[in-house]
Amino acid sequence: MKPVKVGICGLGTVGSGTFNILQGNAEEITRRVGREIVVTQIGARHQNPACDTTAIDTTADIFAVAKNPEVDILVELIGGTSAAKELVLTGIEHGKHIVTANKALIAEHGNEIFAKAQEKGVMVAFEAAVAGGIPIIKSLREGLSANRIEWLAGIINGTGNFIMTEMSEKGRDFGDVLKEAQELGYAEADPTFDVEGIDAAHKLTILASIAYGIPLQFEKTYTEGISRVSAEDVAYARELGYAIKHLGIARRTKAGVELRVHPTLISQKTLLASVNGVMNAVMVKGDAVGPTLSYGAGAGAMPTGSAVVADIVDVARTLTADPDNRVPHLAFQADSLSNLEILPMDEIECGFFLNMTIQDRAGVLANITQILSNNGISIESVIQREREGSDLVPLVVMTHDVKERNMNAAIAAIEALPDVAGAVQRIRVENLA
Amino acid sequence: MKPVKVGICGLGTVGSGTFNILQGNAEEITRRVGREIVVTQIGARHQNPACDTTAIDTTADIFAVAKNPEVDILVELIGGTSAAKELVLTGIEHGKHIVTANKALIAEHGNEIFAKAQEKGVMVAFEAAVAGGIPIIKSLREGLSANRIEWLAGIINGTGNFIMTEMSEKGRDFGDVLKEAQELGYAEADPTFDVEGIDAAHKLTILASIAYGIPLQFEKTYTEGISRVSAEDVAYARELGYAIKHLGIARRTKAGVELRVHPTLISQKTLLASVNGVMNAVMVKGDAVGPTLSYGAGAGAMPTGSAVVADIVDVARTLTADPDNRVPHLAFQADSLSNLEILPMDEIECGFFLNMTIQDRAGVLANITQILSNNGISIESVIQREREGSDLVPLVVMTHDVKERNMNAAIAAIEALPDVAGAVQRIRVENLA
Repeated sequence: MKPVKVGICGLGTVGSGTFNILQGNAEEITRRVGREIVVTQIGARHQNPACDTTAIDTTADIFAVAKNPEVDILVELIGGTSAAKELVLTGIEHGKHIVTANKALIAEHGNEIFAKAQEKGVMVAFEAAVAGGIPIIKSLREGLSANRIEWLAGIINGTGNFIMTEMSEKGRDFGDVLKEAQELGYAEADPTFDVEGIDAAHKLTILASIAYGIPLQFEKTYTEGISRVSAEDVAYARELGYAIKHLGIARRTKAGVELRVHPTLISQKTLLASVNGVMNAVMVKGDAVGPTLSYGAGAGAMPTGSAVVADIVDVARTLTADPDNRVPHLAFQADSLSNLEILPMDEIECGFFLNMTIQDRAGVLANITQILSNNGISIESVIQREREGSDLVPLVVMTHDVKERNMNAAIAAIEALPDVAGAVQRIRVENLA
Repeated sequence: MKPVKVGICGLGTVGSGTFNILQGNAEEITRRVGREIVVTQIGARHQNPACDTTAIDTTADIFAVAKNPEVDILVELIGGTSAAKELVLTGIEHGKHIVTANKALIAEHGNEIFAKAQEKGVMVAFEAAVAGGIPIIKSLREGLSANRIEWLAGIINGTGNFIMTEMSEKGRDFGDVLKEAQELGYAEADPTFDVEGIDAAHKLTILASIAYGIPLQFEKTYTEGISRVSAEDVAYARELGYAIKHLGIARRTKAGVELRVHPTLISQKTLLASVNGVMNAVMVKGDAVGPTLSYGAGAGAMPTGSAVVADIVDVARTLTADPDNRVPHLAFQADSLSNLEILPMDEIECGFFLNMTIQDRAGVLANITQILSNNGISIESVIQREREGSDLVPLVVMTHDVKERNMNAAIAAIEALPDVAGAVQRIRVENLA
């Protein structure tokens, strides 16, 4: 069969990884696909010393690649959302199939891009956008297609997981570990996207759409970062048998779909609690299959390149297929997406870990438990310690499941007590069962 | 689009699970596939009270289903290898696509079945044959298609893992736990297939073919069960920081491919060591993606049905595709399978855990270490304990990596020492990194 011709735009970390895999594993890939995959053109302003592209036609004009009649598949690896969106739409307009690793682009503009692709009869593949090399989109979209997905929960940002792991294993502070992560190149100079959960929210948006057949709704995803989690929170959680992980969670309830990224206490006994360092993992609970977990490297040139190349292989195999029989972009047929409501956070129900500082005085604990009870909140466990030479002592309370609205009301009332110093730290608890 | 018509042969555990998923999740599945999936006929001698098939045309003659012109996809769930093989070949002969959960059939007769399917232009899908609901075949064949697979290691028999977990967590004996597993319905009255590793060897054979593009070679798979592992072995391993798991391992070396099922010591820090009870998990190390792990339920009506139905969905989507562009049965194109040698066990290299009973007398340990050294074996750690009121004491030795041939020679020499009582227990050690 004729070779499949690929144009790659962007020759940064993922671009070089993708190119190196296509060159290095060419023989093995051809044995799988039954035809060669050839890089016809590269759109990049500079060469990248990590890969030898001197033999490949290279242009600084990425749009020339998107319009090149010799390109079958346009691989978008430039990142960002404005130029990338224009590039992808131009490629689609010119009949190219698209492979991209760009989670922000898909989460924020996927609906528009998929509609355009549908109109032009081309595919848009984006396995590399979520959890790097882990084939989680394929697993969810195809491998678990028999299931109604009940919930999914993932460690989908390696930087955040590295920080939480170091805090947990070594008792270190957030700021201290963040600085090391930046020195190691795990975190950007401006770490907002990673530590405030925006990157994870992009990925969660994509996973939830595929799980439930709903349009991409990044703007409705609740996003809370890990910068407020203290070494003390981590230590108390551990004492209670929990790890704190930064999770993206999507759950179907009778009322609608929950979509939320926040620090979360999970039992140390769950496999997810053992996922450490920069590694990623996604749990998916289907009604038929039960709980599953997919684990692997969530970032890096080669792992992400692995997903990009797998997508190229998939698209190459499906080039001649009737578009009606292709796997739909969001797992469900475009005309069968549902308008399930995304629930406001007030409606979410989960357990809570509360960490506060109180006056060491009779009756304070009674007042607090009374407030919790008044808001329909029952207590699972309490840690109260003496602190020598201080009137202020820490109080940690774990609650059973309760609506976020009730917890907000309770916390406001607790913070108004004269014997409670400062704000109440609140971290959600999930049992993932 | 027209509905896809399915004939199901076999209405046992997996058959009823498959039927119930197709009925219960019909709406969700149709939204995914874009067409209905309809069960046209069932081949079974009896109804199964676990599912209501009274509205479906049911025949005791399974071959009538295989020949029924109203059936597009024949689902073989009768198990065993003789009738099942004839049934599948009859279906293929009549132009049916095949979905099966039958690992023995694929591992032992897959080469012949795939050749026949290729000739007739039909698909044979078998995700449910390995690790139940975990989409490991799809992940390996499609999700990781960019990679040269370095090794894979899996807990792929739930019964065996249940037994090893109970032995490890509660210090129980093999026979005692096996009895409980039989009472719980996890193990058959004749547990040979599970505890002696034959079931795992079937699954490993399939995974290895897909990983390396080699023909199925069940007969060359080394198979060792867990019945000889003692509670004492488990306790010593734990003391050294290891868990004992029954693993299927395939590894590519310069000399060829290793294919082996045996009890294995792995570090307690690996995620695989935390996979407990009847759950399954497969680690795959690709050269690009690095280590990955897929985890989930390896058996049961609904998890296995989940994989069967996912295959039905896949086949339905690919019905109209050009056969040349379909994903090949063994991941690599049929004319591109390689003849990589399966290595004899003598050539395998790994660490060893040795547990023996010796006379508590000066010079015995020196004699043993001398024998190990003579065979090029270096020691990583030793546990030697006093045992009150006995001249016989246990000796546990962990070695660095060495060829199995050398270890066999060393063990023979050690067992010949007058101060060594009985046989030397030998369990292999893998670092999975």
